[in-house]
Amino acid sequence: MKLVRYGKTGAEKPGLMHGDSLRDLSAHVDDITGATLDDASLARLAAIDPETLPEVAGNPRIGPCVGNIGKFLCIGLNYSDHAAETGAAIPEHPILFFKANSAIVGPNDTVMMPRGSTHTDWEVELGVVIGKAAKYVSKEDALDYVAGYCIVNDVSERHFQTQLTGQWTKGKSPDTFGPTGPWLVTKDEVPDPQNLSMSCDVNGKRMQTGTTSTMIFTVAEIIEHLSHLFTLHPGDVISTGTPPGVGMGMKPPTYLKVGDVMELEIEGLGHQRQEVGEDA
Amino acid sequence: MKLVRYGKTGAEKPGLMHGDSLRDLSAHVDDITGATLDDASLARLAAIDPETLPEVAGNPRIGPCVGNIGKFLCIGLNYSDHAAETGAAIPEHPILFFKANSAIVGPNDTVMMPRGSTHTDWEVELGVVIGKAAKYVSKEDALDYVAGYCIVNDVSERHFQTQLTGQWTKGKSPDTFGPTGPWLVTKDEVPDPQNLSMSCDVNGKRMQTGTTSTMIFTVAEIIEHLSHLFTLHPGDVISTGTPPGVGMGMKPPTYLKVGDVMELEIEGLGHQRQEVGEDA
Repeated sequence: MKLVRYGKTGAEKPGLMHGDSLRDLSAHVDDITGATLDDASLARLAAIDPETLPEVAGNPRIGPCVGNIGKFLCIGLNYSDHAAETGAAIPEHPILFFKANSAIVGPNDTVMMPRGSTHTDWEVELGVVIGKAAKYVSKEDALDYVAGYCIVNDVSERHFQTQLTGQWTKGKSPDTFGPTGPWLVTKDEVPDPQNLSMSCDVNGKRMQTGTTSTMIFTVAEIIEHLSHLFTLHPGDVISTGTPPGVGMGMKPPTYLKVGDVMELEIEGLGHQRQEVGEDA
Repeated sequence: MKLVRYGKTGAEKPGLMHGDSLRDLSAHVDDITGATLDDASLARLAAIDPETLPEVAGNPRIGPCVGNIGKFLCIGLNYSDHAAETGAAIPEHPILFFKANSAIVGPNDTVMMPRGSTHTDWEVELGVVIGKAAKYVSKEDALDYVAGYCIVNDVSERHFQTQLTGQWTKGKSPDTFGPTGPWLVTKDEVPDPQNLSMSCDVNGKRMQTGTTSTMIFTVAEIIEHLSHLFTLHPGDVISTGTPPGVGMGMKPPTYLKVGDVMELEIEGLGHQRQEVGEDA
């Protein structure tokens, strides 16, 4: 299934994609959140004949594909070629930082640079949506705890990230810096999360080209590691790092400006498109 | 007011302290969360004669004093003497890291060391509860956005924090590492948040003695800085750093073990008491 949330910010309704047709799931589930991502709930939704669901008219805004995300966890430097691009060493364990969950927006919402930002950058990433509480799980069992996958743009302000005497989280957490979606693609439709092509274009020019096959730590290894630190709860989202081609790594470094357009794709997970604005 | 949440984990009811008597607020408000911390809601609760509220019988568990906390923000190295103790330089801006909101527990709940933990440490901190959405606010106006204050124990696993090739957040986020409460003391009862004495005892021995007057960045300055990075939402909690006396700074360093008891106090904000256990 390709689960989707549509409508105004904060009032999104649940839906699913039937081919190119957006169908309304409101009669069957209140929302797509951690509370509705367990195996039984997903099986119940999967049993519905999509032809019986009302087609949604018009072209509504698409919201983040999961509501009420508890933890928005990010893995840094998780592609060997991106680590090389930034001059960083290959880490021994997955590098973890948090993105504020208040940064989450829909896949096509405007990304607003904060006041004074001059170093806002793009990062296409595979997002992993947790379906069941995971604690002390092995990498062999880890994917059992996954509900599905989505695209995340881990938008990053590099000056805030590295120059404000903080941890990376300062540059990762501005409002609108977490476009998530368009779809939560359930794991049955993603047979191998380590073999997905991915890309990010800026103003129509290809900037990032990658594949999840070059991750340093696989999705399963990340879940194993994190679940030994704390419980991963249903509806938590893990963004698993970005392949090469970010603005920070260009010569000279190149950052976003108002009016730029980012377009992101991951194989089977859809497409995001954000314009860039700035806070007044 | 001293607002409190009591009852079983996940099913806490709202209450308030009337002297030493716990009164039930359920007839007036569903829960103490960001949705009920705006000025009008707090004024409505303050207008209730506490004598008319039912007294809660027995000695129920006290939960975290705010429910559904969105962002659990922590400031590092914010006391000049604690910075000296850890050998760190005085930071130019507040050092920000996130604690997982899934780490939050009640003020007297057991703190469970994760498997393999040998470096679990205590940190008494002043918690600031946001009452109104704050973005781009000045330090002069910052305290207008505060609903009140509470005690936070920023429990920290130093090995996870520094040796797992991550950001500090790995050592700050294990389950149960965020005792919060007992009370949300509304700001009208805290005339000067920069003049509160605080302490932490372990097994009856005084380990931390401090005062919020030695913070490097005041509560108002912290809110100003963070609100220029992202929106602070009602119900977000900022833990503002710890004074000297943590286990990491002792000679030799000394960490918690199963059966230890931590007792924390901040002037006017009550008392916490946690036993230490460990994950099976």
